[in-house]
Amino acid sequence: MQSRKKVLSVESMNPNVKGIKLPIADQLVKRAEELQQDLKQGGEGRPFSEIMKCHIGDLYGMGQKPITFVQQVAAICAYPELLQSASMPEDSKRKAQSILQGLEGFGIGGYNLSYISYSIPEKVAKFIERRDGGIPSNPRNIVTYHGATLCIRSVMGLVATNEPLKTGVLVPVPHYPVYTNALVLADVVKVPYQLDEGNDWVLDVQELRRALQEGREHCIPKVLCIINPGNPTGQVQSRKCIEDVIRFAAEESLLLFADEVLQDLVFGAGHDFHSFKKVLFEMGPKYSSRVQLISCFSISQGFIGEYGLSAGCIEYVNIDPLVMDCTTNTITPGHPTVLGHIAMDILMAPPLPGDPSYHSFMEEKQRTIESLAENARLMEEIFCQVPGIYCSPIRGSMYAFPRIDIPEKAVKQAQEEGMEPDVFFCYKLLEETGVILAAGSAFGQAEGTYHFRLTFLPPKKKLKTILQSIKDFQKKFLEEYS
Amino acid sequence: MQSRKKVLSVESMNPNVKGIKLPIADQLVKRAEELQQDLKQGGEGRPFSEIMKCHIGDLYGMGQKPITFVQQVAAICAYPELLQSASMPEDSKRKAQSILQGLEGFGIGGYNLSYISYSIPEKVAKFIERRDGGIPSNPRNIVTYHGATLCIRSVMGLVATNEPLKTGVLVPVPHYPVYTNALVLADVVKVPYQLDEGNDWVLDVQELRRALQEGREHCIPKVLCIINPGNPTGQVQSRKCIEDVIRFAAEESLLLFADEVLQDLVFGAGHDFHSFKKVLFEMGPKYSSRVQLISCFSISQGFIGEYGLSAGCIEYVNIDPLVMDCTTNTITPGHPTVLGHIAMDILMAPPLPGDPSYHSFMEEKQRTIESLAENARLMEEIFCQVPGIYCSPIRGSMYAFPRIDIPEKAVKQAQEEGMEPDVFFCYKLLEETGVILAAGSAFGQAEGTYHFRLTFLPPKKKLKTILQSIKDFQKKFLEEYS
Repeated sequence: MQSRKKVLSVESMNPNVKGIKLPIADQLVKRAEELQQDLKQGGEGRPFSEIMKCHIGDLYGMGQKPITFVQQVAAICAYPELLQSASMPEDSKRKAQSILQGLEGFGIGGYNLSYISYSIPEKVAKFIERRDGGIPSNPRNIVTYHGATLCIRSVMGLVATNEPLKTGVLVPVPHYPVYTNALVLADVVKVPYQLDEGNDWVLDVQELRRALQEGREHCIPKVLCIINPGNPTGQVQSRKCIEDVIRFAAEESLLLFADEVLQDLVFGAGHDFHSFKKVLFEMGPKYSSRVQLISCFSISQGFIGEYGLSAGCIEYVNIDPLVMDCTTNTITPGHPTVLGHIAMDILMAPPLPGDPSYHSFMEEKQRTIESLAENARLMEEIFCQVPGIYCSPIRGSMYAFPRIDIPEKAVKQAQEEGMEPDVFFCYKLLEETGVILAAGSAFGQAEGTYHFRLTFLPPKKKLKTILQSIKDFQKKFLEEYS
Repeated sequence: MQSRKKVLSVESMNPNVKGIKLPIADQLVKRAEELQQDLKQGGEGRPFSEIMKCHIGDLYGMGQKPITFVQQVAAICAYPELLQSASMPEDSKRKAQSILQGLEGFGIGGYNLSYISYSIPEKVAKFIERRDGGIPSNPRNIVTYHGATLCIRSVMGLVATNEPLKTGVLVPVPHYPVYTNALVLADVVKVPYQLDEGNDWVLDVQELRRALQEGREHCIPKVLCIINPGNPTGQVQSRKCIEDVIRFAAEESLLLFADEVLQDLVFGAGHDFHSFKKVLFEMGPKYSSRVQLISCFSISQGFIGEYGLSAGCIEYVNIDPLVMDCTTNTITPGHPTVLGHIAMDILMAPPLPGDPSYHSFMEEKQRTIESLAENARLMEEIFCQVPGIYCSPIRGSMYAFPRIDIPEKAVKQAQEEGMEPDVFFCYKLLEETGVILAAGSAFGQAEGTYHFRLTFLPPKKKLKTILQSIKDFQKKFLEEYS
């Protein structure tokens, strides 16, 4: 046997794959795991007794309660014998029965292509029509997917070409890290535009224009991504802003990719959610007949936060059916499971007034949204008392992205330790309080500014403890390094 | 507003995405759907009263029965109130309870990263050690995935480079169509090697050598894919064959990609399943320390055919941890759902002797495997009576790939109608009998030969009707066109 090098190595692998960053394996999360293990052994000498997570948007993992109706229908569909169970409410059984009929008697383990490819898109289309005040939605333009990561990667892959220059994609800064990896993997160029932090993270068309112009110097910008409600920034864009963006996209021939996965979680008074689809069609055929739009939402990040079941869907507007077919094929290999579709089914067609589960369903839905609204208020209230932490008002989502002062001395020490200053801040916070945040640098931030992303999902009492810990820590941190 | 062309069109999209074929939307399936609708309206004048599907490996969709224990545990995990239910067996509740504890009390809707990233890989590693007679398996080298399509695409993406020539991948002919799309999408070159149909689809190293040599003229072959048990061919490769392949891969510095998703379904006497991992390690450190291997299996295609829950896993051998990390990140966006992991959990640690569910679990497992074995025998028996149909012995899987004679006159007519001759055959069969098969050309076949893929999953009685229909049709077809 000849002595040869291994065929697959860090040097020889696809450079795009090599360029992606591991979202959950960063040093902070690894350190938190070590600390967790240490605490299990007693954690002697630690100034805290538990790791408090608020770095990822894990609705149920953070302690929110799942929707009972979803649980019941899922359980019956998984084990149809439960249709005989006296302890299940009648409408849960009815819903499950109707779903099982749609599965043609083969249960949730089968391919169920007809349910997935026809029934669910029809229900989604009806839901979208209700949401958008009657603007038609065609099931033919709808496809379901397994998770936003795969969806974003597919769309980026779809537009990627190399001739005569690489494709460019306009992405807000900050944005959640899935975008960075999707762009690297698809080998397209990131064209960053800044959200206006001084103005509650509003999207300013002047800034889009600047970014586009700059981008055109080294790539061919084709797509404009908007994340609304914002992740990590928690803003909800105004109708006027969306109109401006649509006009801009029309003028500049950009495909709009509207990431609306957080659309259910909006609670700022006077800051309603407006879908791009609705606004586009209300602007009349001059726009609605030509602007290309791909919008997506998800059951993983709404009030039905069934990340563990996992499903989302895309609506295409003004996309050639042949392109849709090809795209769909890159999105659907990560098809949601049948149970993910079932949760989607419930979200699209929830219990109606008069159904036994109607009240509890609505109550549980409200409970989740109200607890988030309350938590957001609590957070703003506490942070505005903390010198060196600046939090824009939160209108929706489950995230905030406060800016933090990091003294020059701390910046220097971070550099000496080979860390971004915001990572250094989060690292110190973790070591002293057990609170784990996501450092701002993974999301992008304006030069010389520092942030962290925090989810306000934890139950109010725990969130209070977390916020108090951050407050106390920041005071000490500023003192120590000033 | 300037009048511009749409930015995303068939002309402007990524040519790799454009090149992928839609597996489920082909003309036969579409026609079958139309016929189905017509039958619902009465189907007047049709010579059949139902569409009989045997074109996809949909275990439960074809009428096999799911495993009760899996259904029960899934239902309890979905709705933990059922832990109080008197009608659930004790061990189902115990298993569900232990899983729910692993989910840290947050249920199946949460991210559950610790369960997914640590608990399950540990259980999989133990399962692999049992399967492979004690050869160690390290959980660090295991990652779970949502579906084989995504897994295959990720691995192809991983090895894709352009310098100085494109990467080549050796793929058996025939192979299931997922491979074709994965190669196109990753922009790597298919280097086909023929399985030896005359010799029960055996894999011959001489043929590998020929294919490799030919491939090296226009690309850099880096990966050798083996599908064992075969899809669509239903063979099970011998231990000697696997040893030869491993020696060949070592000599030629090829990464082995062993697609073993069908490993549970083996029933040919004297044709046991041998995992590449086991054989590699039994060949000693000369091979086991250097041959790079990525092997995968699935819960969607075994006796737990929970396609609708969907989960599979990969084991890496001799792959740099940095490469594994990057690869994992391209595989996991389509992470299986928590319920998929739960089904995997059960497959890895099924009920033990003495547990209340042990007997029914084993019985149901045997029932599925035995019914497949019986069906395979029935199929061989019937096909060997049909002039113009030649079926190799089936040792495992759920598929067969019989060769068919298509008379010159029929070939000509197919060409006139712009169809592959085998598609023409399947189309005619569908119109006259209602039986839907997968035409061989989507799988690749030796020049001038024609095949179809048929799954023998349907219940025996229905399968008999299907086989009889094919038999009668082939007779008429040969008469009509000779």
